[in-house]
Amino acid sequence: MTDRLLETIHCPGDLKELSIEQLKQVAAEMRDFITHSVSQTGGHLASNLGIVELTIAMHRAFDFSKDRLLWDVGHQCYAHKMLTGRRDMFDGLRQENGLSGFPNPGESDQDVFSVGHAGTSISTALGMALGAQHKATDEKIVALVGDASIVNGLSFEALNNLGLVKRQMLIVLNDNSMAIDVTQGAMAKYLSKVRLSHTYEDIRNTTTRILDHLPLIGKRMEEAVENFKRTLRMAITPSRLFESLNIPYFGPVDGHDIASLIDLFKALDHLHTPAILHVYTKKGKGYEPADDNPRKYHSTGPFEVNGNSGDGKSKGRSFTAAFGDALTDLGEKDDKIVAITAAMPDGTGLVKFREQFKDRYYDVGIAESVAVDIGAGLAKQGLKPVVCIYSTFLQRSFDQIFQEVALQNLPVTFCIDRAGVVGDDGPTHHGLLDVGFIRMLPNLVIAAPADEYEMQQSLAMGVDCGKPFAIRYPRDSVQSIAENAIPYEFGKAAVVREGDSDIVLVTLGPILNEALEAADTLAKDDISVTVVNARFAKPIDTAIINYFRQGKTVIIAEDASITGGFGSAVIEQALQTAQADNDDTMRNSIGKAVLLGGADSFIPPAKRQRQLEWMGISAKGMVETVKTLKCQPEKVDNTSS
Amino acid sequence: MTDRLLETIHCPGDLKELSIEQLKQVAAEMRDFITHSVSQTGGHLASNLGIVELTIAMHRAFDFSKDRLLWDVGHQCYAHKMLTGRRDMFDGLRQENGLSGFPNPGESDQDVFSVGHAGTSISTALGMALGAQHKATDEKIVALVGDASIVNGLSFEALNNLGLVKRQMLIVLNDNSMAIDVTQGAMAKYLSKVRLSHTYEDIRNTTTRILDHLPLIGKRMEEAVENFKRTLRMAITPSRLFESLNIPYFGPVDGHDIASLIDLFKALDHLHTPAILHVYTKKGKGYEPADDNPRKYHSTGPFEVNGNSGDGKSKGRSFTAAFGDALTDLGEKDDKIVAITAAMPDGTGLVKFREQFKDRYYDVGIAESVAVDIGAGLAKQGLKPVVCIYSTFLQRSFDQIFQEVALQNLPVTFCIDRAGVVGDDGPTHHGLLDVGFIRMLPNLVIAAPADEYEMQQSLAMGVDCGKPFAIRYPRDSVQSIAENAIPYEFGKAAVVREGDSDIVLVTLGPILNEALEAADTLAKDDISVTVVNARFAKPIDTAIINYFRQGKTVIIAEDASITGGFGSAVIEQALQTAQADNDDTMRNSIGKAVLLGGADSFIPPAKRQRQLEWMGISAKGMVETVKTLKCQPEKVDNTSS
Repeated sequence: MTDRLLETIHCPGDLKELSIEQLKQVAAEMRDFITHSVSQTGGHLASNLGIVELTIAMHRAFDFSKDRLLWDVGHQCYAHKMLTGRRDMFDGLRQENGLSGFPNPGESDQDVFSVGHAGTSISTALGMALGAQHKATDEKIVALVGDASIVNGLSFEALNNLGLVKRQMLIVLNDNSMAIDVTQGAMAKYLSKVRLSHTYEDIRNTTTRILDHLPLIGKRMEEAVENFKRTLRMAITPSRLFESLNIPYFGPVDGHDIASLIDLFKALDHLHTPAILHVYTKKGKGYEPADDNPRKYHSTGPFEVNGNSGDGKSKGRSFTAAFGDALTDLGEKDDKIVAITAAMPDGTGLVKFREQFKDRYYDVGIAESVAVDIGAGLAKQGLKPVVCIYSTFLQRSFDQIFQEVALQNLPVTFCIDRAGVVGDDGPTHHGLLDVGFIRMLPNLVIAAPADEYEMQQSLAMGVDCGKPFAIRYPRDSVQSIAENAIPYEFGKAAVVREGDSDIVLVTLGPILNEALEAADTLAKDDISVTVVNARFAKPIDTAIINYFRQGKTVIIAEDASITGGFGSAVIEQALQTAQADNDDTMRNSIGKAVLLGGADSFIPPAKRQRQLEWMGISAKGMVETVKTLKCQPEKVDNTSS
Repeated sequence: MTDRLLETIHCPGDLKELSIEQLKQVAAEMRDFITHSVSQTGGHLASNLGIVELTIAMHRAFDFSKDRLLWDVGHQCYAHKMLTGRRDMFDGLRQENGLSGFPNPGESDQDVFSVGHAGTSISTALGMALGAQHKATDEKIVALVGDASIVNGLSFEALNNLGLVKRQMLIVLNDNSMAIDVTQGAMAKYLSKVRLSHTYEDIRNTTTRILDHLPLIGKRMEEAVENFKRTLRMAITPSRLFESLNIPYFGPVDGHDIASLIDLFKALDHLHTPAILHVYTKKGKGYEPADDNPRKYHSTGPFEVNGNSGDGKSKGRSFTAAFGDALTDLGEKDDKIVAITAAMPDGTGLVKFREQFKDRYYDVGIAESVAVDIGAGLAKQGLKPVVCIYSTFLQRSFDQIFQEVALQNLPVTFCIDRAGVVGDDGPTHHGLLDVGFIRMLPNLVIAAPADEYEMQQSLAMGVDCGKPFAIRYPRDSVQSIAENAIPYEFGKAAVVREGDSDIVLVTLGPILNEALEAADTLAKDDISVTVVNARFAKPIDTAIINYFRQGKTVIIAEDASITGGFGSAVIEQALQTAQADNDDTMRNSIGKAVLLGGADSFIPPAKRQRQLEWMGISAKGMVETVKTLKCQPEKVDNTSS
C-alpha cells in the first residue's frame, strides 16, 4: 500500500519531482476525488474524469504561471483547479462564494479567461500568440479544444487565421468522441473516420514516430515542418482537413498515457509555428456509471457514488419538460413543425420530439448561427421551424435573427431556455440579455410564459402566428395549469390580482409567482396591490400603459437585465403615448415607475432563488420595494420588512 | 452590326431562345449597361461586372421562379436584377423609392432573402434544401458564395452540416480572387494554390472531363458520387479540403464561358446530394479601369466612364478618415497599439495605419467574431488592440464582446464605423443597434464623438483607459476641430449652448450639428433651448440626469434605435435616481422626456440626410418636436414650422 500523494500537491510545481508511476497514482486519486466531490455538490463529471491525465501532463510539461492555457467552454477544468491550489475549495463547487465550475481569473492567475461558451480557446489563443509575437516573449500558448467545440464557426475563423502566427502555439484537440450529445456534422464524421481507421497499437506507434522524428526538426522554422510532413506519415490517416488549412497536425495519440503526453508536449514545444496535437480521451473514464453513460453524467446534481444516482431535478417538473411535451403534442397535429437544436437535445427538452419525429429534427452541433439560418430557410419553404437554444448561446445568433429572420419577417419560433439567472453555472450562462437584444429587432414577438398553460399556449401561437416569435423561460420548475386560467391572447397581459392601492406590480414570466407571494405578504399589512402578468415583452399590451394614464405607480419586474429590458420597453411606449396624448397624469405617473431586474453587473454562481433575491425580484424584494414606496415621501429606511 | 438584344429581354425566359453567341452579346450589352448605370448613380461595380456570364448561365439553366437562388452579401446582383424585369429601374439604384443595391424580395420573387451580410447563402440554402426535402418538392436550390464569404464562420457551420441534405443543393463558389480587399487566411491561400496550379487549358479540360463523365452517374445517389470521385480526377488539384468535409467538389472552371457553365449546371442538376462547383471569375471584367483597380471600384459614387473617376466623397473629410489619421498618430507614439479589421481596411480607414505599422495590423477576412477574440487575446497580453468593424457587422460579435471582452473587463477599443443610418445601402447596413446591444454589457464604455476633436480625444482615451471602450461614428463628414472646444473628460457631457427655456436638447454624436441648427431656427422664434452634447452613451453624465432634477423637459436624440437606445439609458438612470432621492420634481420631469431616434421598423435606402429626417433627428425634426412641446398643453397641431 502506497502513501496518498494528492494531499502533497499544492501547486503544479509539486508534480515535477514525481515519477511517472507516481503521476499515475495522482491521476487515480484525483479521479476519485472528483467523483466524490461532484457526488456531493453536483457539477460536470464525465468530461472532467476524461481529462485528468491530459491535465497532469500539461502541468508537468508547461509552467502555466508563465505559459498560458486557454480552455474551451471550460467545464472540464476541475483537475486543473485541483492542481492549482484549489482542491480544498471543491466542497463549495458552484455554490455561492464558492469555486466556479468554469475557469475564473478571479480565482487563480492560471485561469486566463472566464469561459463557458464554445469555440473561444483557439480564437483567444490566437490573439495571445500574436501578443507574445509582438512583445517577443517566449511563453508557450496552449489552446485546449474539444471535438464538439472545434466545429463552431468561431473555431474555424481562428483556424483559418493561424497563418498570422509565426511562433509556437499548440492546439490540443481533446477528442472524446462525444460532446454533451453525439457531435454532429462533417468534421465529426471526419474525426470518427480517423478514429475508426486504426487500432490502439497504431496510436502507440504514432506517438513513437512523432517523438523519434521531432528532434530532427529541432528549432527550425515552418519550412522544416513542411518538409517533415512531406517525408513522414505522422498520422495514420493523414489529416487532409488540417493540412489543407496549412496547419501542422500530429496524432492521434492516447490522452491517458501521461508519459507519452509529457514527451510530446516537450517535443512540440520546439515548433515555431502553430500546430495541432490530436488526443483521444474517454469521457467518464474511471467511474463506471459515468463511463457507461457520459451524457447522463455530463452535468449532474448530487448523486450517490455507489448507489442509484439522483437526477438532480429536485424541484419538480421543469419548463424544459413542459416545452418538450408541448412541442411533441403540437408536432403530432402539424407535420410542418420542425425542431432545430445546437448540440443540446437533452438540455432544450427535444429528446421526446426527436424520438417521435426523427425526420423533423435537426442537430447542427455547437453552431448556433447556422441553426437560426436553417430555421430561416425552412420558414421560407413554408415550414414551421422551432429553434431551441439557451438564452446565453443565442447571443451567438444575434445577427442571424436580425438579418435572416427579422428583416425578412419570417415565422421562426425561438424557444429560449435558461432565460434569466441560471444558478450555479454563473455569469457565462445567465440569460439576462435576450429581452433586450431581441426586442430591438422589428417584427419580433417576445412571449414569457409564467406557467405550463402559457407555455403550451405561447408555443401553439408562435408556430402559427406567421411572425418571428421568441418564447423565453427559465431553468426552473414550472407551475401546473391553473383551473381557471385567463384566456391567452396575442399581445395581451393578464390581470392576476386586482388591488385597491395605487401600486401595480407588472411581471414578466414565472416571477409572477414571486409577485403573488409578495402581494399576499403585503395584504397582511393592508397593502393591496394589483398584480399583472405581462405575458408578452413585445408587443406591450396597452392595458399596461393605461395604468400610467390612471396615475398608478407601476413596478416592472423582470428576470432579465434592466438595461434595455422589458421595463425600459414599457417606459419607452408610455413616454410616446403620453407625448402623443399630451397627458400630464400619465407623465407624472411614468416618473414614479420602478424598474426591477438585473443591474449593470455580472451575477456570480449561487442558487437561482438567491440570485433572484439579489436582483430584487424575489417576493421579499418586491415587498421591500412596495413598502419603500408606501413610506415615501417621509423617506423612512426600507429595512421594515 | 447586329441588333441590340438587351432591350428584348424582359424576363429570364427571354434568354431561352437565344444562341450562345447571342448570350455573349447580351453579356457585353449588360456589362456596358451596368458600367454606365453605376457611373450615374454610384454602386458596386467591379463585382457586378465579374459575374455577368455566370448570372446569364444560371438563369438559362435554372428557372428561378421555381428554383431558388440564394445570394451571399448580394451586392453583385445587378445582372440578376436586369434579367428579372428591373432593368429600367436602374436610374433609381440605391435611391429613395428606387431599386435596392441588394437582393430584395419586395422587388421580385426571384430575390429570396434581403441580404447584405456575408456567409448567409450556404446556411439559408441549407435550410431551404431541408425544407424541400421535407416537402418532397423538386425545385433546385442554388447558393452563390464568394471566396471572401466562404471563410466566414457561418459558412463553415453550414458546410459542416451539409450532410443533413439528401437531395440536390448546388453551391457555386464564385472565386474572383479578391474580395473588397485581398482575402486573408488559410482557406484563401488554399484556393490560391489551386488557382496557381494550372493553366487556362487545364481549366477547359476540367470542364470537359466533368461533362463527359457526369452522365455516367446520371440520377444515381451519393454512392455513385463517391465512386466517381474515387475513379476520376475531377479537379486538377483534388480538393482535399472539401472532400475531407465529405462535399463533392467540381472544378475549377471558367466563369466567363457561358456555354460550358450552362452545360455544367444542367449536368450537376442530376446529383442527389449537395455539391460545390468552383468557378473562376474576374472582378471588373470588361471595364478597364475597374479591371485594373477592382478595390477602387468595389463600391463607388458616380464617376465618368471615359474620364477621371470621381471618388464619390463629395461631402468632405469623413469620420473614417479622421479616425484613420488619429489612430496612426497614436500608433506613432505608442507601439502597443495594434489594429484589427475584418476585411475592411479601406472602409474602416486603416490603410494608412497598415502602411505605417505593418506588423501591428491584422486583417482576418470576413470573420468579425474571431476579430474580437484576437483583440481580447492581445489585450490579455497587455497590448492595446483597436478592433475596427462596421456597426451592422459587429452584430456578428455580440457574444464575443459579451464573454471574451466585457466579462473579462479587457481593454479592447471598438471603433465602430457606419454607426447610425448609412444612406443608400439600406436596412442590412444601418448601424442602429450598437448603442442598445453594447450598453447591455457591463464594463463597456460607449463614446460617440461629434467632431474631429472628439474623435481624437475619445480614441486616445479608449486605448489608454484600461476598459472595454466602444467608439461609434457615422458614415458622414466630420466637422473640423473647433477652436474653443470644451475639454474632453471621461463620462462627461458638454453643454454646447445654454438656453433660457425649460427645454434641453441632448444629442449623441454628430447630430449635435442638427440640434445646433435647430436651436438657431428656434431662436428666431424666441425659443431658447439648451443643447447638450452627451459625448458618452455609457456611462451617462449625472449632469444630464440633473436636468430632470431641475424640472426641465429633456429631448434625447440619437442616430440609433430608440428601442433600448441611449434615450432609454438616460430614462433608466433618471428613474433610479428619482427613486433613490425620492424627488418628485424629477419624477414629473422624467415623464415629459421625448425620445427621438429610429422607430421599431427597417429604414429603406435613401440619402442619409433624408433618413435622419424620417427619424425626426434632422434640424427640422427637432424644431418641430420643440414647437409641439411649446404649443402644448393647448394641443395645437405641429405643422407650424
